[in-house]
Amino acid sequence: MSSTPIRATGISADRVPALRRARAECDPIMRRWVATLPDTRPDSLRRMAGYHLGWFNRAGQPSKRVGGKGFRAALTLAAAAACSGDGGAALAAAAAVEFLHNFTLVHDDIMSGDRIRRARPAAWCVWGVPKAILLGDALHGLAFRCAVTDCPDATVLGVVSRLATAVTELCQGQYEDCALGSGTPIGVDRYLHTVSGKTGALMGCACAAGAWCAGADSATVDALDLFGRRVGLAFRITDDLLGLWGDPRATGKPVGADVRRRKHSLPVVAALGSPTQAGRELRRLYGSTAPLSGAEVRAATGLIEAAGGRRVAVQQARRELRRAVVGLPDELAADDLVSLAAAIEHREG
Amino acid sequence: MSSTPIRATGISADRVPALRRARAECDPIMRRWVATLPDTRPDSLRRMAGYHLGWFNRAGQPSKRVGGKGFRAALTLAAAAACSGDGGAALAAAAAVEFLHNFTLVHDDIMSGDRIRRARPAAWCVWGVPKAILLGDALHGLAFRCAVTDCPDATVLGVVSRLATAVTELCQGQYEDCALGSGTPIGVDRYLHTVSGKTGALMGCACAAGAWCAGADSATVDALDLFGRRVGLAFRITDDLLGLWGDPRATGKPVGADVRRRKHSLPVVAALGSPTQAGRELRRLYGSTAPLSGAEVRAATGLIEAAGGRRVAVQQARRELRRAVVGLPDELAADDLVSLAAAIEHREG
Repeated sequence: MSSTPIRATGISADRVPALRRARAECDPIMRRWVATLPDTRPDSLRRMAGYHLGWFNRAGQPSKRVGGKGFRAALTLAAAAACSGDGGAALAAAAAVEFLHNFTLVHDDIMSGDRIRRARPAAWCVWGVPKAILLGDALHGLAFRCAVTDCPDATVLGVVSRLATAVTELCQGQYEDCALGSGTPIGVDRYLHTVSGKTGALMGCACAAGAWCAGADSATVDALDLFGRRVGLAFRITDDLLGLWGDPRATGKPVGADVRRRKHSLPVVAALGSPTQAGRELRRLYGSTAPLSGAEVRAATGLIEAAGGRRVAVQQARRELRRAVVGLPDELAADDLVSLAAAIEHREG
Repeated sequence: MSSTPIRATGISADRVPALRRARAECDPIMRRWVATLPDTRPDSLRRMAGYHLGWFNRAGQPSKRVGGKGFRAALTLAAAAACSGDGGAALAAAAAVEFLHNFTLVHDDIMSGDRIRRARPAAWCVWGVPKAILLGDALHGLAFRCAVTDCPDATVLGVVSRLATAVTELCQGQYEDCALGSGTPIGVDRYLHTVSGKTGALMGCACAAGAWCAGADSATVDALDLFGRRVGLAFRITDDLLGLWGDPRATGKPVGADVRRRKHSLPVVAALGSPTQAGRELRRLYGSTAPLSGAEVRAATGLIEAAGGRRVAVQQARRELRRAVVGLPDELAADDLVSLAAAIEHREG
């Protein structure tokens, strides 16, 4: 990650084989489960799910894939492969983790009012809030159906238990995240503590579930949980960076949206705490509640960088990724895990 | 159930020992799980959950209980007792079913815009839609945590699997229910088919899970699933009746709310299809979109009764309850199940 615009070496499946494989292997499982949802009407739960997951357009026709990266599924399979050389036993867990992730996306978009998801209108913008709440609930349920039905007998209880515990952490993380949106400025440490719950919990769960499915001992499972949490925190910080300096063609999100709603992302938190002229000007802009013009959004983005917010966030993401990789047990065949961590540093969307 | 106002012999724990026992036995389990939710702020997930469940007031102080009836938990314990003479093995499943039920209530209130739940402001009215979505998600997660952690080893997979399958049915049922709210009138048969998914799915799951936990064979588990679905349909129909003729002190819901939003409940569906003068007048009132005055709400309620809507619904509820009880396998010790079914016919809230 550098201070030039973030792009060109994106976190694409073409460049990260572990991501490509995870998608190819999990997609059929997820499609099979989505196909169990009823398809009684033009805007059925099945079609909404397929739209959100990037498989269909809103009319239910197959669409060119604009789905998610499948990063969490890839973590699960990579963690399993690191422990046993074969990710196969963790496939259902990987698909279940993706279902949980997608349930949270659908609900989070409602809560935060985000209208664009993966370069298309968010589900709640297409079908309204009530149906989008149901879609999230249905995906939440599919996570558990998939896990309990498809996981090998020896692993299923551990997977279900980890998924269910992750839900509590995800809810609490999102709760804290909503509270961050506005209100009193916070420090960098408090920010990191607050956001680590949300992205960290599910990536920790993804890695731990993978290790568990591969029959790892509990110390290894715990170590991979911690790896996932650190990677998750770095992932979240790069989200923050992309929200300010990402290429909308790659992120699928409009430029300036985070500034417009004065989101307290890490670069902003760091810049607001800076004793520089730029920091003072930014505090003035963020202290008001008046809507920001396009020029003010651009000015604020410049102030965040000038006050050192970007540098702090880039360094923090690198630090978390380094700690994640250094903390991996030596005996693991961790190539895929390391490549996924490295991909975060170079992601563009 | 008679054509006089529905009250006086309500479905209260005092009158139905199986309900009282279910509450007394499940409450501690549910409280223990709710206590695992974080309590970091005045409006934390834990406090919101305790408020919704009737344990706290909105400030988090213990309140005189105005929680739910615990009817689904009672079904689970009664089904287990019918199969083995002891409901103990099904306690965690019963608590999990109640968590699922409460998750759906929190989300359903948002979707339908219902402002009152159990005689108090619904969670979304107190804390807003985003936090109420999270509260529902957290209760959904607790259902699985409770089941996977507390169910005896021999039963846990069957319980988790049934809960997860019920979630899909519940989502689909709520989806169909939302579509019922407005739009083209439907016939009684189509109405019954549509609503049987929602209330039926979870009550079927409640009974089947209880039988499963008690070690029943699969034919018995299936028979109890069917019992629960029939009871659920009757329960739903009495909801419809209480929405029109219930005592608000017992139902905790304002008078006339269902008519005001022209809800197509069973009495309305039946009355709209009636070739009587009252049916014609009702079709005119429901065919308009103009807001209904208090006098029109009272007039519509009278027309629904005059057109035979109440009679049809009362008979249908009785028919479902009779089929439920008659269909129970002879060898079961089904006293509690029968008393719960009977309580539906006499419920007032």
